[in-house]
Amino acid sequence: MVRMTGTKRAILDAAIEIAAERGISGTTMDDVAERAGVAKGSLYYNFASKDKLFEGLLGEGMAALTEALRGARAGTAGWAAIEVLVTTLLGSIAANTALAKVIAGDIFRTDRAWRETSFAFKHDALAEFETAIVEALPEASATGAATLMASSVFGATLMAGLQWLLFDEERPQSEVVAAILLTFSGRLAPASPSREL
Amino acid sequence: MVRMTGTKRAILDAAIEIAAERGISGTTMDDVAERAGVAKGSLYYNFASKDKLFEGLLGEGMAALTEALRGARAGTAGWAAIEVLVTTLLGSIAANTALAKVIAGDIFRTDRAWRETSFAFKHDALAEFETAIVEALPEASATGAATLMASSVFGATLMAGLQWLLFDEERPQSEVVAAILLTFSGRLAPASPSREL
Repeated sequence: MVRMTGTKRAILDAAIEIAAERGISGTTMDDVAERAGVAKGSLYYNFASKDKLFEGLLGEGMAALTEALRGARAGTAGWAAIEVLVTTLLGSIAANTALAKVIAGDIFRTDRAWRETSFAFKHDALAEFETAIVEALPEASATGAATLMASSVFGATLMAGLQWLLFDEERPQSEVVAAILLTFSGRLAPASPSREL
Repeated sequence: MVRMTGTKRAILDAAIEIAAERGISGTTMDDVAERAGVAKGSLYYNFASKDKLFEGLLGEGMAALTEALRGARAGTAGWAAIEVLVTTLLGSIAANTALAKVIAGDIFRTDRAWRETSFAFKHDALAEFETAIVEALPEASATGAATLMASSVFGATLMAGLQWLLFDEERPQSEVVAAILLTFSGRLAPASPSREL
């Protein structure tokens, strides 16, 4: 986690905004200093390089998300936990759409200086989903399917959430949660044979 | 669709490779000419600008994907169509992982010169999923849920697929398809109340 001063917060907010518009590669330290209204000396005092800035930003965002997911899951299990995790992830995407766009664009980049940090944080967030999935369907753990299923639930929520926020924002959040959960409810599958998969 | 000559194909392949490593913003026309082994004059003769190059590249990729999805879905309906669409999308991601990474990173960028083209193609690919979903669950159409469910199934397959190819590539493709479909099968949800959602 990044320890936060007013200047640091202003820098991170400016960096998220610009990167959501132009991507991380299209963002320069000059742009960030100007948008944040801080001197370049002050920017570099807080973050030694653009790589350090984005490592801090993505790390902070993913750590806050993981903490929110963990808190939401506490006291629930199985399908109830999956419901609350999807709801919480969608709420986080709605509350921080610019950051969600930056994370969605960066999540499978393997060339970043902050790759290791990013993978560790992604792993922690996905682990919350995986735990709930294994509770709901213990045999998924044995076959290694649970990890892929966690990515599936996360990817479904991220894509449907950004689709909603960028192209269909009038729709109430509760309808979006309901549509995502309906996808996992089994109502798309035939009642009997596929439930025996 | 881009009409293909040997030079054009070499340019597109080079551009996909570099953009998968460094992102589109991190890719220059000089890099592309060098990697493709063509003179800069020839590059600009084929694509007037970097924007035109990536518009062609993403347009061609998404059109080929939509065509593959449409062909796969033909003659099936409902859950069987969803199974074949997930299998086909995963196969396309495996066959063109570099392109899938570029598309995943670009899909929610709203600042691109090729935004309109990109949205139209994304819409066509998602429409294949939406058709199958409405066949399986007609009432999803009435509430507008089907569009969000199509994004959910697409996002689940894209994220689980890239997770597999980048971090777990030893796993057979059939296991990955099975894990994604298991997420939608309803086995995560309690047998009765959630099926009445």
